[in-house]
Amino acid sequence: MSEVIRFDLPQSAIPSHWYNVQADLPRPLPPVLHPGSHQPVGPDDLAPLFPMQLIMQEVSQERWIAIPDEVRDIYKLWRPTPLLRARRLEKALDTPAHIYYKYEGVSPSGSHKLNTAAAQAYYNKQEGINGLTTETGAGQWGTALAQACSFFDMECVVYMVRISYEQKPYRRAIMRSFGASVTASPSDTTNAGRAILEQDADSAGSLGIAISEAVEAAATSGGKYKYSLGSVLNHVLMHQTVIGQEALQQMEAAGEYPDVVVGPTGGGSNFAGIALPFLRQNLTADKQTRLLGVEPAACPSLTRGKYAYDFGDTIGMTPLVKMYTLGHGFVPPPLHAGGLRYHGMASIICELWDQNMMSMSAIPQMETFAAAIAFAKAEGIIAAPEAAHGIAGAIREAQAAKAAGDERVILFNLCGHGHFDMSAYDAYLGGQLSDYEYPQTEIDRAMEALPQVG
Amino acid sequence: MSEVIRFDLPQSAIPSHWYNVQADLPRPLPPVLHPGSHQPVGPDDLAPLFPMQLIMQEVSQERWIAIPDEVRDIYKLWRPTPLLRARRLEKALDTPAHIYYKYEGVSPSGSHKLNTAAAQAYYNKQEGINGLTTETGAGQWGTALAQACSFFDMECVVYMVRISYEQKPYRRAIMRSFGASVTASPSDTTNAGRAILEQDADSAGSLGIAISEAVEAAATSGGKYKYSLGSVLNHVLMHQTVIGQEALQQMEAAGEYPDVVVGPTGGGSNFAGIALPFLRQNLTADKQTRLLGVEPAACPSLTRGKYAYDFGDTIGMTPLVKMYTLGHGFVPPPLHAGGLRYHGMASIICELWDQNMMSMSAIPQMETFAAAIAFAKAEGIIAAPEAAHGIAGAIREAQAAKAAGDERVILFNLCGHGHFDMSAYDAYLGGQLSDYEYPQTEIDRAMEALPQVG
Repeated sequence: MSEVIRFDLPQSAIPSHWYNVQADLPRPLPPVLHPGSHQPVGPDDLAPLFPMQLIMQEVSQERWIAIPDEVRDIYKLWRPTPLLRARRLEKALDTPAHIYYKYEGVSPSGSHKLNTAAAQAYYNKQEGINGLTTETGAGQWGTALAQACSFFDMECVVYMVRISYEQKPYRRAIMRSFGASVTASPSDTTNAGRAILEQDADSAGSLGIAISEAVEAAATSGGKYKYSLGSVLNHVLMHQTVIGQEALQQMEAAGEYPDVVVGPTGGGSNFAGIALPFLRQNLTADKQTRLLGVEPAACPSLTRGKYAYDFGDTIGMTPLVKMYTLGHGFVPPPLHAGGLRYHGMASIICELWDQNMMSMSAIPQMETFAAAIAFAKAEGIIAAPEAAHGIAGAIREAQAAKAAGDERVILFNLCGHGHFDMSAYDAYLGGQLSDYEYPQTEIDRAMEALPQVG
Repeated sequence: MSEVIRFDLPQSAIPSHWYNVQADLPRPLPPVLHPGSHQPVGPDDLAPLFPMQLIMQEVSQERWIAIPDEVRDIYKLWRPTPLLRARRLEKALDTPAHIYYKYEGVSPSGSHKLNTAAAQAYYNKQEGINGLTTETGAGQWGTALAQACSFFDMECVVYMVRISYEQKPYRRAIMRSFGASVTASPSDTTNAGRAILEQDADSAGSLGIAISEAVEAAATSGGKYKYSLGSVLNHVLMHQTVIGQEALQQMEAAGEYPDVVVGPTGGGSNFAGIALPFLRQNLTADKQTRLLGVEPAACPSLTRGKYAYDFGDTIGMTPLVKMYTLGHGFVPPPLHAGGLRYHGMASIICELWDQNMMSMSAIPQMETFAAAIAFAKAEGIIAAPEAAHGIAGAIREAQAAKAAGDERVILFNLCGHGHFDMSAYDAYLGGQLSDYEYPQTEIDRAMEALPQVG
């Protein structure tokens, strides 16, 4: 029993660079298109929303991009994050597999999101921007950006989906504690919000509407604010690669190498964070680690979607991105894993999937909560419902290893704790949750609304 | 800027022994008395409630008590906890002081409480006990014991003060996620509970009532359950000394030694955890660190209480303990730092205070929340309202250092995060909190009810 189960690293081991997988992809990412002209967008099109440094990162082909000292200094508050071997879970599952998890929930915001929030706030501050707008649904991203803005003494304007705003007062409070202004969306502070409220004064809001409000608030601020997104974009995924780079060092300290690396996929940044540095080892160091994304069975963008150009938001205001999509009009059921309720997926992940460089599992909600409870009882950590998908994927692997009698080495990314999601556990334990089954006809119908490109 | 600010230790640095300060106190602790006979209680009197190993630890005069491997294995899930230098806070305060904090909030239960919960569950399990009863108010302790019982596959029966049960559904849910049964107190499952409900069917409950129910449930279980307490007792304080022992190693790694060590005092275990190992250095290694306890101005057991024999609970069922007390009938105002709303104090802390071996600050609620917000903005961590008292104490020291122009080295114990206490922050930020001033006459009145001993 008395073996080492935690593999901590000194602060000097915090990566000095982010890994940009674009340098190693077999073909370039499909261009992002203007929603009106269907022509590729250029840096100038994006300049009203993002600082030039991030726009350049978005399209960079450089393999390694240096992490600024100021960002690394922020990382030092919680990085390197621990990697643990889940010995108690292995025993509970009676599996010969070795299960490791990288725990990003130790970040002050409680998830991996702060890795990119700190970087985005920094680059905006560098360009003289003193405030950021964003949207938040479940609240993980809004919390991270509120913290990051507080670190750099910037304003943070969060549009929070009204139903979350009302149901999650603690999330509201934590963002305000960091000095952010939090507005229920739809609001009367933007044209987009007012238009929705005119149609329905009691609108519960949606992530799509909140995005529209946050984008409008930045675009019409006369340069006072820019806009910030917590997943999907290339630079956001790249900022998360500190996770996998640390995990590589920690697996070495553990004296093992993963046969499979598991991460939940919502917008893609969580999975990318753990998986891309291992992908690089596959490509350059003759490793053959299987990269396994896990998505909710009820929002199966990769496993049941189509690789096509679609809007990033629900309303159809954003540029067109080629991605596996269920159609921008697809409304996922009210899963508790709010962070995975997205109709599309990051370009980078879509390319990996399309090129057979990764595999996928789609897991029903009830199985993810059962996995989360088993993990909590064994390892002590209450996972966010999003993170529970990673646990469920790892448990499936561990069960397969048992059936096959092999000592499979499994590594998964535990991207955040569920302290602000306990109502979901309450509902699960109270027998009030169920699975959702989407008939193919409904997905097909949403697909019909895909924009016709080229 | 790019200096090291986190001082992590390898798992091998987890202490091998708890430090028992009873071996070094200048005089023995006053005996605990039977509530009826007023005679010192012996091990047999306590045996229905506690396992013999813990009873022996309670009165042991051995300086070092070995931590069982099984408990150290649990500690490895999160220990050693990090020690950080609060460089951002120093800058925000513009102080020459060096501020360090030991962060216990990284424990899976979110506070230092798991250090003793794991030990208590272990010793009970060793004695063949398969379940523990306890009370919880704010929920930190109930959460820790629920986790500890889950680790050792034991039942956990929590009596939760009814008003907290209703106002803190997330706390309820986290305990249930670990498999604990959680009952609103007063309940109809005990004589004590039924008696209260007969008088007042809508009783909101109190910690005193919940203690009575938990003790009765253990005492009448025919040996199936024992009872577990989260602070005050000698063995509980001793289990927390892993905190200060680690901090000693980490301060050495930082190349500094604290001039003052700060911790909040409620029942005493948090302060004891950080302070006692430094006290030992004062006593044996010619160090002169000031040990500073911080209590709420509205519940000033040490600064305005009397050193006398009193009951540990509100109803008057427990043995009599000599302690600084405001009177067991003293009802503290509804402070948000629920863990510090206790009329008395651990025997060990009372002796230190009586013997001038420590100093005290009593800090009003509004100052503690202002300190917590300043800390959150600088360091990113939302502290529990109890932990905020330690921050406020440290900030007072840093301001004094600035006034005096000295480079004072301050170390405080950040005992837990406030993720389940965001309603308190919401109230503070919404301008709904205030300070409480207790007239001496009211304290004097509560003192009149002290039992007459000897």
